[in-house]
Amino acid sequence: MGEFELIRHYFAAAPCAQAGEGVALGIGDDCALLDIPAGEQLAVSTDSLVAGVHFPEAADPFLLGQRALAVSASDLAAMGATPIGFTLALTLPAARADWLQAFARGLNQMAQSCGLRLIGGDTTRGPLSLTLTVFGRLPRGQALTRSGARVGDLLCVGGELGDAAGALPLVLGQLQAEPALAEALLTRYWSPQPQLALGQALRGRATAALDISDGLLADCGHIAAASGVALQIEQARLPLSSALKTLHGLDSARLCALSGGDDYRLAFTLPPGELSALQAAGWPLVVVGQVVAGQGVQLLNEQGQCMALPVAGYQHFEGSA
Amino acid sequence: MGEFELIRHYFAAAPCAQAGEGVALGIGDDCALLDIPAGEQLAVSTDSLVAGVHFPEAADPFLLGQRALAVSASDLAAMGATPIGFTLALTLPAARADWLQAFARGLNQMAQSCGLRLIGGDTTRGPLSLTLTVFGRLPRGQALTRSGARVGDLLCVGGELGDAAGALPLVLGQLQAEPALAEALLTRYWSPQPQLALGQALRGRATAALDISDGLLADCGHIAAASGVALQIEQARLPLSSALKTLHGLDSARLCALSGGDDYRLAFTLPPGELSALQAAGWPLVVVGQVVAGQGVQLLNEQGQCMALPVAGYQHFEGSA
Repeated sequence: MGEFELIRHYFAAAPCAQAGEGVALGIGDDCALLDIPAGEQLAVSTDSLVAGVHFPEAADPFLLGQRALAVSASDLAAMGATPIGFTLALTLPAARADWLQAFARGLNQMAQSCGLRLIGGDTTRGPLSLTLTVFGRLPRGQALTRSGARVGDLLCVGGELGDAAGALPLVLGQLQAEPALAEALLTRYWSPQPQLALGQALRGRATAALDISDGLLADCGHIAAASGVALQIEQARLPLSSALKTLHGLDSARLCALSGGDDYRLAFTLPPGELSALQAAGWPLVVVGQVVAGQGVQLLNEQGQCMALPVAGYQHFEGSA
Repeated sequence: MGEFELIRHYFAAAPCAQAGEGVALGIGDDCALLDIPAGEQLAVSTDSLVAGVHFPEAADPFLLGQRALAVSASDLAAMGATPIGFTLALTLPAARADWLQAFARGLNQMAQSCGLRLIGGDTTRGPLSLTLTVFGRLPRGQALTRSGARVGDLLCVGGELGDAAGALPLVLGQLQAEPALAEALLTRYWSPQPQLALGQALRGRATAALDISDGLLADCGHIAAASGVALQIEQARLPLSSALKTLHGLDSARLCALSGGDDYRLAFTLPPGELSALQAAGWPLVVVGQVVAGQGVQLLNEQGQCMALPVAGYQHFEGSA
């Protein structure tokens, strides 16, 4: 199979009616061309997933395809961007049709659900890894950055935390669980749903936002540092699924939420006056704390006292910028 | 070193005064933000280089940094785009300071010479590989695609061909050459100069264009297929460096130019009326053939007779789209 055919054959097959607005030229030339409406900016993010580091070598290719795109699209959600498309750089030990077919099916399914169109890429032979670059657009000056949190804002998250971290021992085969419990957590690991609509709803409302990839503590640390404030998290307010609590117990479930990573939920700061309108509109947001003067992240117990921080999110060599 | 610090420390150090126009938000948030002027389009291309496949594992990191960005920027040249910036996804077995420093120096040097600014990226641990996504802009509708070649156009290239392919046995240590000869060829392999200015000069003049990465024959085949025409190459017109001919002899030098790849010169089709103005302006273009009715690529000897095609460019699993 020739130069472009591999990508065309496997990845450009799925019709994707709602996606691809703004794509003037897709796969097959030296560059893709995007049209950005006047008054809007382009948002860009790049993420790599490496076998043996970010996922098991033998991972189900359908699930891997879903997850890879979801992780990348989540960065668009964090900025409040409207999705346009993505490029895929896929490095594979060999071009196995069954693997490619399943991977493409997972990728295409997530692409459709996110409204993202594959606009180009590169396929190479080598140790299994994926690099996705996602593109979105948003009105100029309305991006949700990490630097706007103000003292008095509420700290919110977009739903239950810790499920993906709680699923990791299942993914790695270190733990068994009854099917219903396992499925609830594994779905959150393999098929996180990027909160794209929530991110867009937060434009002009949230003062700072990001998606939680390294755990709530570490990611709140990024907002605190970029905004020059401190973020207080009230431990009792952490939204935890019953599956997570059942499998791991309350203390471990909290640790998953605080330091586990891989949630891909939004965390954001919100002036108190914005809360009720967003709640009335049905957005799945949970207040977990507030912004105060100072620096860093504080964890409060039920008496409002500062607790010692558990492992403060995993600082690892891997990182996204 | 933390989440963004690795990239910031090594790759964002070099001041890059002329680069970065249009970058509203660079490294450090969930996405970078680009401003595309009204009436312009964004051009995007992604390329991966994998150790052991595209370059030797022990490659000099300075040269690798130069080459990786040059290869990607060449796709912007092929579309006639004005460079904006790039993202870097770097996968490394370990974060060795000396390697990173040298790699960043090569990358930054090519970035400055191309007018490209690093706007984001991802660093991960794993087998050595690089994926670069480059961004440029161009007036809407003026991109040089592969599909516009017309019967009667001239087929041109942007300079001598085959040097990089001729350097490959030196890169791989399979051949020795006297220093001056080796350096002339190795420079063309490790530090190809993307023909960005030529690409921009061809906007509104060339009817089709691409950059030669798989060898002239294979890449002309792409233009022929996309445009629905045949491309004739006159073998005697192939521009060959004296270094290439001295090291390999005329027949092998021609084979390097036709089927070798890695040139990263532009190949383009030009209405005859456009030729003299471009030549008068001093652009390094060489007419190597013409566009005729039919399909595919024809190679003509000095009597104008069709020759059997040599190995028709390497069709490989690796490919860019």
